[in-house]
Parts: sequence; C-alpha cells; structure tokens
Amino acid sequence: MNIAIILSYDGTAYHGWQTQKNAATVQQTVTDAVASVLGQDVSVSGVGRTDAGVHARRYVANFHADCTIPMDRLPLAINSHLPMDIAVSGAAVVPDSFDARFSCTRKEYTYLICPGRIRDPFAISRSYFYPYPLDVSAMQQAAAHFIGRQDFAAVRSMGTPVKSTVREIFTCSVDSVGRFVRIRVSADGFLYNMVRAISGTLLYAGQGKFPPDDVRRILDSCDREQAGPTLPPQGLYMSRLWYDSTPELDAFHLAEEWGAPGGLL
Amino acid sequence: MNIAIILSYDGTAYHGWQTQKNAATVQQTVTDAVASVLGQDVSVSGVGRTDAGVHARRYVANFHADCTIPMDRLPLAINSHLPMDIAVSGAAVVPDSFDARFSCTRKEYTYLICPGRIRDPFAISRSYFYPYPLDVSAMQQAAAHFIGRQDFAAVRSMGTPVKSTVREIFTCSVDSVGRFVRIRVSADGFLYNMVRAISGTLLYAGQGKFPPDDVRRILDSCDREQAGPTLPPQGLYMSRLWYDSTPELDAFHLAEEWGAPGGLL
Repeated sequence: MNIAIILSYDGTAYHGWQTQKNAATVQQTVTDAVASVLGQDVSVSGVGRTDAGVHARRYVANFHADCTIPMDRLPLAINSHLPMDIAVSGAAVVPDSFDARFSCTRKEYTYLICPGRIRDPFAISRSYFYPYPLDVSAMQQAAAHFIGRQDFAAVRSMGTPVKSTVREIFTCSVDSVGRFVRIRVSADGFLYNMVRAISGTLLYAGQGKFPPDDVRRILDSCDREQAGPTLPPQGLYMSRLWYDSTPELDAFHLAEEWGAPGGLL
Repeated sequence: MNIAIILSYDGTAYHGWQTQKNAATVQQTVTDAVASVLGQDVSVSGVGRTDAGVHARRYVANFHADCTIPMDRLPLAINSHLPMDIAVSGAAVVPDSFDARFSCTRKEYTYLICPGRIRDPFAISRSYFYPYPLDVSAMQQAAAHFIGRQDFAAVRSMGTPVKSTVREIFTCSVDSVGRFVRIRVSADGFLYNMVRAISGTLLYAGQGKFPPDDVRRILDSCDREQAGPTLPPQGLYMSRLWYDSTPELDAFHLAEEWGAPGGLL
C-alpha cells in the first residue's frame, strides 16, 4: 500500500531533508525509523528538499510498504523510533499514484525574523535575529508585488537547472506576531532559495534601503543582484501543503493538533 | 564598582548555573565572557542555582569590577563573547551592598507543560510533553491551596539542609496559553525542586488522580510521598525577580524588551 505521513522537524541538527553520505539528514532518519517499525526496507520520498537548518511543520512524505498497523497508531509507532526533534503527526493510506512531490498543488513557507537590540536565546535557532527596527507596513507594501504569475529569476539562487523561472505566487503576506515579523508565501512551486531571497528583499524594504514599490522594478530586471540578500536558513519553515486531488490526505485536518510554537505557524 | 546584569538562557546545553569542574555551566560561561570584555578576573554571583536543563528569563547576577564601558553598551559587549544560547539584556551599576542572591525579595518561576497526543519537536526541550489531556480548572482549584505562608516540606526534594521548610507563596496560577499549560509560582524563596514538585502535584490534580482540594491534606502531611512527582527540568524557567530596595535594578524595566518565546514568559 501507499502510505503518506505528515511530519514536523526542527532542522537545526540536520543537513537538510535529502539523504547524503556521512551526514545526518531528516530523510534518512525517517526512513530508518519506518523500516524499523515495519521490519522491511522502505524508500521514503518527501515533498521537496529543505536545506540544512531549515525547519518544517506539516511536511508530507510517502512510501510503499506492507503495513498492518492501523493508520491512527502508525505515527506513535514511528515516533518511538525517531529522535525528539522529528515527529510524525498523521498517516493515511493514499492511492498508488500519489507522490508527495508531484501530487502537491501548492506549498506555503513561513520566514520568521526576530528584530530587537538584544538576541533572544530561545529564538536564535528558529528565526533570523535582526538587531534593528523594521517598518512592517513598508514590507507589506513591498510584499504585494510578489503576488501573481511572473518570472522570479531575480529572487533565486543558482542550483539545479530549471526549465523556467516563472512561478505563481498566490499569497505573500507580512505581519507582526508577538516579537516576530512573519513572512508567509504560498505558490505553485518555488525556485532554489526563493523564499529566503524574497525575505531578504522584504527586509531591505523594511530597512528603507529602497522604496517598497521598487520590488516591481527588481522583479522585472530578472537580475539577482538587484534584490535583497538570501536570509539564513534558521528562519525558514515549510509550513503548509495542499494536495487538492487527494482527499485521503487532508493535511490541514490531519495536522490540526499542531498549534505550533507560540501559534506562529 | 558593583555591576548587576540581567540575562536569559536556554539551559539545554548546560549543567545548570553553578560552576562545576569538567562540565559546561552558565556561571562559568558568563564569568569567562565578562572577564574577556573587562580584561580582568571577575567573580560573577547569581540569584540562585538552576539545575541542568532549566532555563532562565531575566536571571540576575552581579560582579565587582572596574568598568569604563557605559552600562547601555555593556550587554552587547558581553554578548559578543557569549554563545548564542545565553544573552545579557541589561546592566546597571548598583550599590556596593547589592548581592544578586541576598538582595532578592521575591522570585517567580514558570513551568510549561505541553499536553497533546503527539510531541512537538519545537517544544520538546522547553516544556514537559504530556501525552494526555489535562483538566485546567481542576489544576487552578488545586493551585489556590499553595498560596500563603506555610510549610512546604511535602513538595521539596532533599538537598542542602535548610533551617526551615516554611516559605511564603504570593501567587500560584495555572492557565492555558496556546497549546501550553502554564504554571506560575512566586514566593519569597523556594526549597530544592519545589516548583517542579508543585507542578507534578498540579499535574496529578489535572489528571484526576486526586480531588483538587486534597492539596490541603498533602501540604499538611509534610510528607513528600503524598504529593505528585518532581517534573523534569526542561519545563522550568526562572521567569521574574524582584529587588525592592534596589531601584537601580528595575529588572522588569530593563528586561522590557524581552517579549519571550511565544509571549509565554
């Protein structure tokens, strides 16, 4: 059977999702745990790579295996074989054709910035500490320009070659939640480092390094040099996924019980 | 001059506050940082010991030293010599007679419980994961019995001998904040493991292991065996201190900028 799982991880201790030789990764850790529980080799595929230090809430992965454990008990069974910084919160049997990556119709990432004069030891590995004030309304004005179907070549890093740098951003919002500035971006897909570069561009707008409406010009230039910096990984979370054609996997419902740290995600 | 500092630390990586041989401690780490900044040996004294894994917000320490750095810049100077899981948020010159421990008139500790079926990787080192529901109103009813000047022998662990097990608890409250159950206790002083034993007793009341009003009987018994368990250290935070006779050190004011993780502390 084809089984999808929803999981959450603090990425601090991992070299990203994807299995690598000689490095702890989330994919390998989860694969080993599932194999231990089911007593068989499995190949666990995720919705996408996350970089070293990046976190995830409601990450989706799937694997084909024989399983006699009921789906409502499978998360706890897998969790008992996982380290404390990874947890499976839901599992569902999905159609054979389901693939965590290719069946995904929409993804949301959240980027947390923690502005303040003094760093916060409790936030440091889970947000980007920025020691100056930020103009959130300027960031909101800048964010609006990212929405829509357009070329995002200006806000990506060179990585694996892609056929096109056109994507559709459905939502791009900035708000203040407690002491954090929260950026949320949902799209049909993302280029490499795209959310971290969008966040760096919004940060520059929030510092007043350019007027918010300059984002229009920056995107039109398709020139990475025009945009803001790629912010560091510890502020980034994969925060929500949509699988429109797979009602078995209502990710939001299955993950309902995740309130998230401080209600931020 | 006598300098007081306010600091915050994630205690996960430390064997508590107090300096020990062959173990990383917060006191030694801070002492080394201050000595590096000031270029002289210093002896940093804290308001009290915290156990391995226990956290602190607005912890106060003091040291006697020559210092030409203005007090508003001293925190950043010290922080540049500290690891990211400790941060000084304020500094003030205080009277020579000030002592972080003996001048303190009141302390508050916060204990966070994270109830839920599935553990949260982001909360696991900063709260006590409890995989069953809790009756918060029963916990509130139980908490009221801890308030007042009374003998707390039933809720302490044996440690350094003390003259008396009588203390005055000013406030003892339980509430739900996001997905956490938060216990806050302020007193003129605490016995060893007292907040963790109070929290374990409130947890038992919240599970229905005994009626909330049994706390009266438990306290009157002065018998540690009657009360609930000592909960683990990762849920405990030193969260606020009062120094009534030292206006130079308005801890609350100096630490105002700490919003705290998720607004919980």
